[in-house]
Amino acid sequence: MTEALERFLSDLDAEIRKHGNWGEVADYIPELARVDPAQFGIAVSLADGRIVTAGQARQQFSIQSISKVFSLACVLGRIGEQVWTRVGREPSGRPFDSILLLEQEHGRPRNPFINAGAIVTTDELLTGRQPKEALSEILAFVRAAAEDDDIHIDKAVARSEAETGFRNVALANYLKSFGNLRNQPEMTLGTYFHQCAIEMSCVQLARAGRVLAGLPDAPRLLTALKSRRINALMMMCGHYDGSGDFAFRVGLPGKSGVGGGILLIAPERASIAIWSPGLNVYGNSMMGTHAAEQLARRMEWSVFGS
Amino acid sequence: MTEALERFLSDLDAEIRKHGNWGEVADYIPELARVDPAQFGIAVSLADGRIVTAGQARQQFSIQSISKVFSLACVLGRIGEQVWTRVGREPSGRPFDSILLLEQEHGRPRNPFINAGAIVTTDELLTGRQPKEALSEILAFVRAAAEDDDIHIDKAVARSEAETGFRNVALANYLKSFGNLRNQPEMTLGTYFHQCAIEMSCVQLARAGRVLAGLPDAPRLLTALKSRRINALMMMCGHYDGSGDFAFRVGLPGKSGVGGGILLIAPERASIAIWSPGLNVYGNSMMGTHAAEQLARRMEWSVFGS
Amino acid sequence: MTEALERFLSDLDAEIRKHGNWGEVADYIPELARVDPAQFGIAVSLADGRIVTAGQARQQFSIQSISKVFSLACVLGRIGEQVWTRVGREPSGRPFDSILLLEQEHGRPRNPFINAGAIVTTDELLTGRQPKEALSEILAFVRAAAEDDDIHIDKAVARSEAETGFRNVALANYLKSFGNLRNQPEMTLGTYFHQCAIEMSCVQLARAGRVLAGLPDAPRLLTALKSRRINALMMMCGHYDGSGDFAFRVGLPGKSGVGGGILLIAPERASIAIWSPGLNVYGNSMMGTHAAEQLARRMEWSVFGS
Amino acid sequence: MTEALERFLSDLDAEIRKHGNWGEVADYIPELARVDPAQFGIAVSLADGRIVTAGQARQQFSIQSISKVFSLACVLGRIGEQVWTRVGREPSGRPFDSILLLEQEHGRPRNPFINAGAIVTTDELLTGRQPKEALSEILAFVRAAAEDDDIHIDKAVARSEAETGFRNVALANYLKSFGNLRNQPEMTLGTYFHQCAIEMSCVQLARAGRVLAGLPDAPRLLTALKSRRINALMMMCGHYDGSGDFAFRVGLPGKSGVGGGILLIAPERASIAIWSPGLNVYGNSMMGTHAAEQLARRMEWSVFGS
Repeated sequence: MTEALERFLSDLDAEIRKHGNWGEVADYIPELARVDPAQFGIAVSLADGRIVTAGQARQQFSIQSISKVFSLACVLGRIGEQVWTRVGREPSGRPFDSILLLEQEHGRPRNPFINAGAIVTTDELLTGRQPKEALSEILAFVRAAAEDDDIHIDKAVARSEAETGFRNVALANYLKSFGNLRNQPEMTLGTYFHQCAIEMSCVQLARAGRVLAGLPDAPRLLTALKSRRINALMMMCGHYDGSGDFAFRVGLPGKSGVGGGILLIAPERASIAIWSPGLNVYGNSMMGTHAAEQLARRMEWSVFGS
Repeated sequence: MTEALERFLSDLDAEIRKHGNWGEVADYIPELARVDPAQFGIAVSLADGRIVTAGQARQQFSIQSISKVFSLACVLGRIGEQVWTRVGREPSGRPFDSILLLEQEHGRPRNPFINAGAIVTTDELLTGRQPKEALSEILAFVRAAAEDDDIHIDKAVARSEAETGFRNVALANYLKSFGNLRNQPEMTLGTYFHQCAIEMSCVQLARAGRVLAGLPDAPRLLTALKSRRINALMMMCGHYDGSGDFAFRVGLPGKSGVGGGILLIAPERASIAIWSPGLNVYGNSMMGTHAAEQLARRMEWSVFGS
Repeated sequence: MTEALERFLSDLDAEIRKHGNWGEVADYIPELARVDPAQFGIAVSLADGRIVTAGQARQQFSIQSISKVFSLACVLGRIGEQVWTRVGREPSGRPFDSILLLEQEHGRPRNPFINAGAIVTTDELLTGRQPKEALSEILAFVRAAAEDDDIHIDKAVARSEAETGFRNVALANYLKSFGNLRNQPEMTLGTYFHQCAIEMSCVQLARAGRVLAGLPDAPRLLTALKSRRINALMMMCGHYDGSGDFAFRVGLPGKSGVGGGILLIAPERASIAIWSPGLNVYGNSMMGTHAAEQLARRMEWSVFGS
Repeated sequence: MTEALERFLSDLDAEIRKHGNWGEVADYIPELARVDPAQFGIAVSLADGRIVTAGQARQQFSIQSISKVFSLACVLGRIGEQVWTRVGREPSGRPFDSILLLEQEHGRPRNPFINAGAIVTTDELLTGRQPKEALSEILAFVRAAAEDDDIHIDKAVARSEAETGFRNVALANYLKSFGNLRNQPEMTLGTYFHQCAIEMSCVQLARAGRVLAGLPDAPRLLTALKSRRINALMMMCGHYDGSGDFAFRVGLPGKSGVGGGILLIAPERASIAIWSPGLNVYGNSMMGTHAAEQLARRMEWSVFGS
């Protein structure tokens, strides 16, 4: 299988570079707005321990919202099911930075993968601790999952978002007004912006995803039940108001980031990371989604049947 | 495996009958309001062709919204992808009979498994045909899928809903006002109410679901791609605003009906039908959801990992 | 004053005919879609009993939503304050035929001057009576107020709306589903469509409005308190989501109809009727609003100061 | 008239102190939460120049949202109609601190009397100036209108709101994210919190309101057109989602503040200020609204007829 996959990824990379309809990079974070949208990388970590790649698979990028998966994993490890008193588990059907439902639902975000929900998750991680410690925990989790210590936070990106992330400032203060933020908004947001600014390559991210895919060589960082539940949340809410379309086309749980990354899980089969910075209307990677669809179809990895 | 499953289902049935927190039956359709909520049946159709049951697995009940899966299958067979110009594929995050998003989204329902979307699907099936013919097609599909001709429409239930289904009348007329209904509202609704009034037992429904599970002994009525896509829609939207919770707890695509039925698909492994008429707050079967969760966990059938 | 007013109205008529930006006629009622938008008439009934007119002031037109004022007056006469248990008194901030708030507010329309609220008002008038009797009461009120028996219902318009008024059918059925409609939706709607199809000229309408303006020669049909309250509702909700703009520009309570009519009340000074069938984006008469603004400013009739 | 009014106010004061159902003080600003709700004062400034009072008419209180009327007046003086490109003129039908419509309407607040709209107005006043200068302009306007220099800002209240006004911080940042805030959110908010913390007595406020009532002895600070328009906005939007109810019961343009004050305008007749810190569900003074209703009825001052 590995050879066929290698050939497929190589062809996919070539096809995308030739015919790519790249989309546009996020412009609300100045540091990300400078990135060239016409880039592509992919890495697939398989059950047999091998990793197959194509394109710029070792180029690091800003994982942004993909970090929400890791911060949720840390929170579930720390306080478990209690987190659901502060955040829901339903798709929101609204953009990633929507504030509307927060008013209608009295400050309880729909799920931990939209911005409001992830801010709550990060706030929970800060309970009784300083930002530095919470960030260390997330980084430690990611490094342990990837078995790679060369994963860091790009402070320039964190700073850039802190300067212009007015909508996130609005969300945090709005949560605070409902009593669903324990710390001062600035403190939680500072931590959140840094967590989003973690840089990883496709290879690193695919390796980190093994704990969710339940691959045999994955470090034992999560129980099987927790992995399943995080995967379920990724399927239902991982692509915001484009989650239904992603499930329809790809058929695998995934989480996108505004930096152009997608973490894709084929349970018990593979952990996949794709990166292409140009985005579609939902704020998800345009060519990344295309590649995910092609890969899932070619490998018959859809969880909905082959 | 079959023996272990038999024992498990039998124990589950006993436990539910002993400790069942049954919920309440739907009261907006008078004919359904009379049903005793404290009933339970389950049937599991396996890949080896066997069917394992417990409880009132041969008792027929009104499949109601589960019929939306079959009418969508018929429409996809008839016009294919074109249907998505009239209805979306995203979870709505709202109750099954909500009309709010229809105003905000100019008459295009979010997905084919909420009432508004299913009315559009049925309307599409009526193109160039009489209600009788459209209903015959749906019935023929269900009978062929179940390989059982003893499946009928309960006209008293259809009539009962026609008399009191004011919210559905509102939805159909609202769709018409946006030009997203081709036929007169009464005609489409009459067909829709009859389709919802199909009666099936758990055994019949589990057998009909084999085409979605892609079981070896299933009649060839759908391509693999279509089955996968319908399963994806069931996962994302099959339980209305409780879809996220269902995915989190059960981890399998499913579709519920207000009559207390749930069709559950474990791709390539099993097709499951559960019935218990008492409902939870989302309008989904209370004990049915409980049984689905127990079964998926015990058999390690979650699509999100074992 | 009368002479100055005569000259002003005559000049206004000439100016509008010369430079009129007429807007477009309503197209959702086929019978109204045929009307030429480039028409204009105005009649002002003064406190001294005189009536001053310009343009097509004696041309009858479909009063449509202006009838909501008269049906509310009848209901207030019949059951008084009790009506507020079924309908609110707040501006809705949404289009006249919006259904969205009805879902959020559990079937209680925001006010009696949007369609949903007027349907409830008419339904209340039908309590214990046949449509014919309810319609007779409304007609009798209008004729008595105008002291003119030559006011009738245009049945072709009523029929036309009954055939195509899908959104109103949706509203009535939606209200019924919440238990906020006592009669069958078809019966209430039939009455409502007929009430909207009352035909009046500007002269007739201006004379009918005297009871709201509290003019000395007005028939005693309403208490002063009731008139004030209806005027308050007209100010707050008389022009749907354009009510704020109308108050800002005109400064008088008014009620518009999709047939292009506007009833305007200058308390204790005048009752004014304007007609021009072309509509603006809110569904209110384009040139009618313009004329109202010019007249109020010229006569210093704004209730907000001179 | 003055004598009858004196007697009426004195009786009203006595009745309220005896039977007052005071409501509860605002609790989201700690400094205001300490105020005793069971207080009442009223001052009526008449066209003949006299001022009639009852109760604690000389007790200063935090005018809070009533300041929005004065900041709007300053902005209209400075840039005129241009302000309407940034803020609307329609009632919002939502609570004073709602953020929901801001998302649906892309950052343009419905009107200048809800918090979001008033933040935009204040932001406009800061164009090319420091907070101190903008605040000086507002204070200068209020003092000139009241012809009283003893009007100041309570810095403890401003500080208190700055520490806990998370919802306003959310609104300002959300506006900024849409590009509808020119200055840094903290700067605009700091100014806004100080403007809201102006302290006035009923006597001072009633005297300041003369410019809106167009009383003969009012300083010439606003054109008649501007006064009329501000009055129209007060009528339509001055009491948030309770504006319709206020118009129905009182029939006069008014603006409430969360400190328990109400400024009430009877055009060409009187400017009235009422204060009672206990609030109703809409966040408007409970006994203040009661007093306004009694006064308007007794004096036949409703703009909707006598």
